[in-house]
Amino acid sequence: MLQKPNRQTLVEQVALQMESLIESGNWGVGMRIPAEPELMKELNISRNTLREAIRALIHSGLLKTKQGDGTYVCSSSALGAAMKRRILRSDTLQTLEVRHALEREGAHLAAQRRTSGEVRELLVQLERCEEAAKSSDIDRFVTEDIHLHQIIIKASHNEILIEIYSHIAEALQDSITSLTRYEAGANFLEIHRQLVEAIVDQDADRAVEAVHCYIQESKEVIIKEQEEQP
Amino acid sequence: MLQKPNRQTLVEQVALQMESLIESGNWGVGMRIPAEPELMKELNISRNTLREAIRALIHSGLLKTKQGDGTYVCSSSALGAAMKRRILRSDTLQTLEVRHALEREGAHLAAQRRTSGEVRELLVQLERCEEAAKSSDIDRFVTEDIHLHQIIIKASHNEILIEIYSHIAEALQDSITSLTRYEAGANFLEIHRQLVEAIVDQDADRAVEAVHCYIQESKEVIIKEQEEQP
Repeated sequence: MLQKPNRQTLVEQVALQMESLIESGNWGVGMRIPAEPELMKELNISRNTLREAIRALIHSGLLKTKQGDGTYVCSSSALGAAMKRRILRSDTLQTLEVRHALEREGAHLAAQRRTSGEVRELLVQLERCEEAAKSSDIDRFVTEDIHLHQIIIKASHNEILIEIYSHIAEALQDSITSLTRYEAGANFLEIHRQLVEAIVDQDADRAVEAVHCYIQESKEVIIKEQEEQP
Repeated sequence: MLQKPNRQTLVEQVALQMESLIESGNWGVGMRIPAEPELMKELNISRNTLREAIRALIHSGLLKTKQGDGTYVCSSSALGAAMKRRILRSDTLQTLEVRHALEREGAHLAAQRRTSGEVRELLVQLERCEEAAKSSDIDRFVTEDIHLHQIIIKASHNEILIEIYSHIAEALQDSITSLTRYEAGANFLEIHRQLVEAIVDQDADRAVEAVHCYIQESKEVIIKEQEEQP
């Protein structure tokens, strides 16, 4: 007996296919996806099916439509996009506790697993942070700081941690900027230098201690800030 | 000048509205959502718009359609659903490292913030774990064990941690079951008792030490298991 093709399944199939193109990096973040006629032809589907699949991915936070321009990839994973939305509506103190969980584990594993190539990357990036701090350009410092943390997480060689972290980084930008106004001082930099050196020396305990230290300082800054508000 | 109403925005609006009903628990996990005619009337939208919004939520992993039955809520957050999909395709060792990150932070915060009500919950749940262990029913033990960890995370009073964790719990079921075949022994229970007692005593250092202990044991079990495989 013939079965009526299930349209819902078809939309879902197309959405999953596009999602895997995005997650694998074939469709990179910032890229405009191919035009409708091209995709319809390639996937052998109708315009309606294609549009529905695209809307599903817009809802997941993977794609974004720019009016009169086209559809762009705006996040490389559904997990990252969901994490970002969640962080954006959380308070800074709770976000900091989640950062502590992830960055502590990341530093611990990085100290055990970093390659010599990653050591070089870390040292170069630490220098960039120090230069940015000297320039008194807070936005530049925050960008370099987040990048340093991303390199550390990458050196953990844990794919789930790397994925979660790479996507919260963008959401963190704002909360780190506000923190940095207070703490871009010498001490904050010194702790980061200790963290990098501990990872280079493969000393997991010292690495974890350094993470604990800057998270603790940041917590104190936030609590002070909250107390000062009327 | 009149603007053509943007259909895409309408679908997205409806999807977001349903998502917030799900995330707030108004539409609980396992519940069948109202029938199409009812939703169309309530939201004042067409059948097509409704169906598209539902498909977007199916793609995010929040809803599931049972053929010839209806549409059910199958996860209470997009973040949770995305996390679950990610965990299911990761290896057990990497999953364990993420558990370490979250459970360690959770235990640390729980020791500082647990209420007296949560202390009672923890002690009752610990007893359930011990009874389940005595019964030699592994599935029952794993269910009680996961529930114990969820109560601890809840006692952290960090909303993001709670949300992430509540949803990975289901994905963890399988990996914990395979671990438990090895370690449901007296020692594993003893470590959990120490963890609960540390949280009750508000001793964050001991709580963290206990988490470290059972994660480390589990890691050793997995590594041994992997070495034994040809």
